[in-house]
Amino acid sequence: MHHLEKLIERIIDRINVNLRKPSFDVGPYLRHLIAPDQFARFYGFYGLTEHHPIHFLFTHSSIAGSYFLGKCIVDHSVLYKTDVRGDELKSEGDFLECESLKIPLHNDEVIHIKDSYLIKTLVHHYSHDPESPEEFFIRNSASMHYANIHGSPIEGCFLGPFATVDLTRLHDCVIGAHAYVQAGELAHRFIEPGQIQVQIRDCFNFLYRFPEEVLEKYICLEPGSPPRGIFMDFVAEHKASFETIFKVVQSSLPIPVPRGASLSRYAVVKGNTEIGENVLVSQRAYLENSRVGKGSNAQENCYIVHSRLDGLNITAHGGKVIHTRLGEKVFVGFNSFLRGTRDRELRIGAGSIVMPHTIIDLEEPLDIPEGRLVWGYVRNRRELEGHSLPLEELAGTNGRLELGRMSFEGSGLKMVEAFTQRIDHILEANGAYFDGTARHGHAQKARHISFNIIQPYPGGLFRGLCPRIEIRR
Amino acid sequence: MHHLEKLIERIIDRINVNLRKPSFDVGPYLRHLIAPDQFARFYGFYGLTEHHPIHFLFTHSSIAGSYFLGKCIVDHSVLYKTDVRGDELKSEGDFLECESLKIPLHNDEVIHIKDSYLIKTLVHHYSHDPESPEEFFIRNSASMHYANIHGSPIEGCFLGPFATVDLTRLHDCVIGAHAYVQAGELAHRFIEPGQIQVQIRDCFNFLYRFPEEVLEKYICLEPGSPPRGIFMDFVAEHKASFETIFKVVQSSLPIPVPRGASLSRYAVVKGNTEIGENVLVSQRAYLENSRVGKGSNAQENCYIVHSRLDGLNITAHGGKVIHTRLGEKVFVGFNSFLRGTRDRELRIGAGSIVMPHTIIDLEEPLDIPEGRLVWGYVRNRRELEGHSLPLEELAGTNGRLELGRMSFEGSGLKMVEAFTQRIDHILEANGAYFDGTARHGHAQKARHISFNIIQPYPGGLFRGLCPRIEIRR
Repeated sequence: MHHLEKLIERIIDRINVNLRKPSFDVGPYLRHLIAPDQFARFYGFYGLTEHHPIHFLFTHSSIAGSYFLGKCIVDHSVLYKTDVRGDELKSEGDFLECESLKIPLHNDEVIHIKDSYLIKTLVHHYSHDPESPEEFFIRNSASMHYANIHGSPIEGCFLGPFATVDLTRLHDCVIGAHAYVQAGELAHRFIEPGQIQVQIRDCFNFLYRFPEEVLEKYICLEPGSPPRGIFMDFVAEHKASFETIFKVVQSSLPIPVPRGASLSRYAVVKGNTEIGENVLVSQRAYLENSRVGKGSNAQENCYIVHSRLDGLNITAHGGKVIHTRLGEKVFVGFNSFLRGTRDRELRIGAGSIVMPHTIIDLEEPLDIPEGRLVWGYVRNRRELEGHSLPLEELAGTNGRLELGRMSFEGSGLKMVEAFTQRIDHILEANGAYFDGTARHGHAQKARHISFNIIQPYPGGLFRGLCPRIEIRR
Repeated sequence: MHHLEKLIERIIDRINVNLRKPSFDVGPYLRHLIAPDQFARFYGFYGLTEHHPIHFLFTHSSIAGSYFLGKCIVDHSVLYKTDVRGDELKSEGDFLECESLKIPLHNDEVIHIKDSYLIKTLVHHYSHDPESPEEFFIRNSASMHYANIHGSPIEGCFLGPFATVDLTRLHDCVIGAHAYVQAGELAHRFIEPGQIQVQIRDCFNFLYRFPEEVLEKYICLEPGSPPRGIFMDFVAEHKASFETIFKVVQSSLPIPVPRGASLSRYAVVKGNTEIGENVLVSQRAYLENSRVGKGSNAQENCYIVHSRLDGLNITAHGGKVIHTRLGEKVFVGFNSFLRGTRDRELRIGAGSIVMPHTIIDLEEPLDIPEGRLVWGYVRNRRELEGHSLPLEELAGTNGRLELGRMSFEGSGLKMVEAFTQRIDHILEANGAYFDGTARHGHAQKARHISFNIIQPYPGGLFRGLCPRIEIRR
């Protein structure tokens, strides 16, 4: 048996022992999911700039098609077309503040992925876990296609496709397909597919659950088969464009990149597309016939197609924006799917917040007013009524609020503040406010970047695995 | 000052302190030779196969455009478009035999390049130096364009363009442009440009020296300028084809590759070209409108253009074969330049040996009979008479023999035997005799190889330098 097959079996065992109570077998989901040839076909790559301290250490792992930035250790793991971004790691001497405690870091923080199997997953590190300040860990865990592990250390977990764990520490949990969890800390929990939960303990709790028939249509996972549904079909339709850009080592910029902006050479740009100043277009973003206004960011795995974004727009990891017009500072959360058509345009007014995982798939043109919170599943004006609220109204809520399948409890003001602060942090961190000399962010730091390529053993018992590689300044 | 500029200055100082007696200043040759932009433009790469034990360690170095295979340590050095091949390194437990001694190796042997500056140099390790069995070192040294460091550890040396040091240990030597030295051991020597010397102490000594006007025309080096001459013009004319193949990460084979053969994806293949079984075409080889017969090898930096090679032909590192027909088992040595034209074909009969660095640049068609030794500078039949001997005649010589600018002393039989054995070793090592199951060599081992890409820092103070990288199985 090849080492890579053995490795996958060992990872399955390690996850299963974590998930033995309640019993959950990840084997049928992971075994034979990716054809063995695929692991030897794609190269891993890592970014190198003058701005990012680096340390990469890969041992006995497969990293086909995966991207790394920052400080990442990968050990006995399979990372398949996964993006691991460690560009917001803390440094030795920094402090992690938690309630009244101020914890100094002994060492630089690293992302440490061990005994895990991640598929097309986005790992972004910006954690606030005070219990492990030097190590952002992903251990004994698996995640399926287009999951987001976002500032969330996990151990003994299984994440379904398009699931997002966000600013949460998880231990021995199963997160269903397209579920979104932001909840501080979770242990031994099974989160149903399509459950959306944003919770800050003693502050507020937002809950929504997608109807089963919607999940069945958009994203569905059954043991023994790859995930299926409209989300999977959508990315499959755009796959060929990415193959082209991954074939060349260096490439020239396909469109002008204005002052303070950066456009990854691993992003796809098609048709009549423009980007403004301070725009960040990350690797694996897809732009087609779109205008992306000043200070916006198009994050990993996002698609912006036939759309116009007025500026300071965040299209978070995996967000899809099609035939849509976004006013200024509209936020589109993780793995949202906003699909208008030529005849049925979607317009979202300035300052609105589209909750992570929202599906807006239009049957008729739709205008969402300024300053709204939108969630759930919306196809028309009527459904919008049941899946949105003016942010102002939410801010005035204290106590319990129910609307359709959504329930809210706690301080609406705290939730609005939490979102507003976070959006500002994202814009700031991504360089949206760069003034030519100060307030640098990712967009400016990624302007000059080289990518190094790591290929696996092409044959023999180690086929598909990488040699041990360590890289540091 | 950028770190790379400082590094180059420090290397210059280290070489100069070695070469202080007799005083030789390498500064004017190395300083400003390569435009700083170039170091950030090209990627280094290393090969990965199931057959080659690897260990790469790069620290504080620039490796723009350089290729590595095997076990190589590069430390505070600048390697510019250099090929470093460590695929014939000895392993822990192997023995190095030297006269009556049998020296066991404590560790695997490595190539160790330290405080050196190599430009477009081919480093091939197959050393017989018993004094440093675990380390093949290149220290405090510089080499210019298309030099070959072939099984020759060097310390405190400067090698001119197209110079070759072969199976020799050198300490504090200057080797002139296009000089070839195979002499066991040399210290504190200045080898004139164009001097060809093959010597085995107490056995034989072959000496030839190119006329100055020939060197002036073909390859000439003056302090403060890059090398110039026909050799430099020739490679410059073929440069664009290489740029194309270096741009893509993976490429499909341009022509059929028969059983037991391998064709590097970093070789150029143009026009109507065929290769036979067990043929090895290395990276940076160039084939155009040629037939390369069974068991031949086209080594790094060689050019085979409008030519036909009958089989078991070695075109050594940097050899050029144009409008030429080679009979079976003709050997073309390092950096030889054999140039016929469409109307003035060169034919060389089976079993002939073209000495390293030979220039045959025809004014008329030329037939070289079977079993000849050829050296020096030949443009026509008349000049051939003064620059060749039947191998049989050489084998019968014992004592002194002079022919034009060539002088020979010692046992002709030993020289013929030394060449014959070496040619057989090269063919064997390169896999020419592979029978489908046994006698594997480089051609078979390189069939399945991946290449990993290392890019330097794109900006900032470290521009053009690589991070510290360590790779091992």
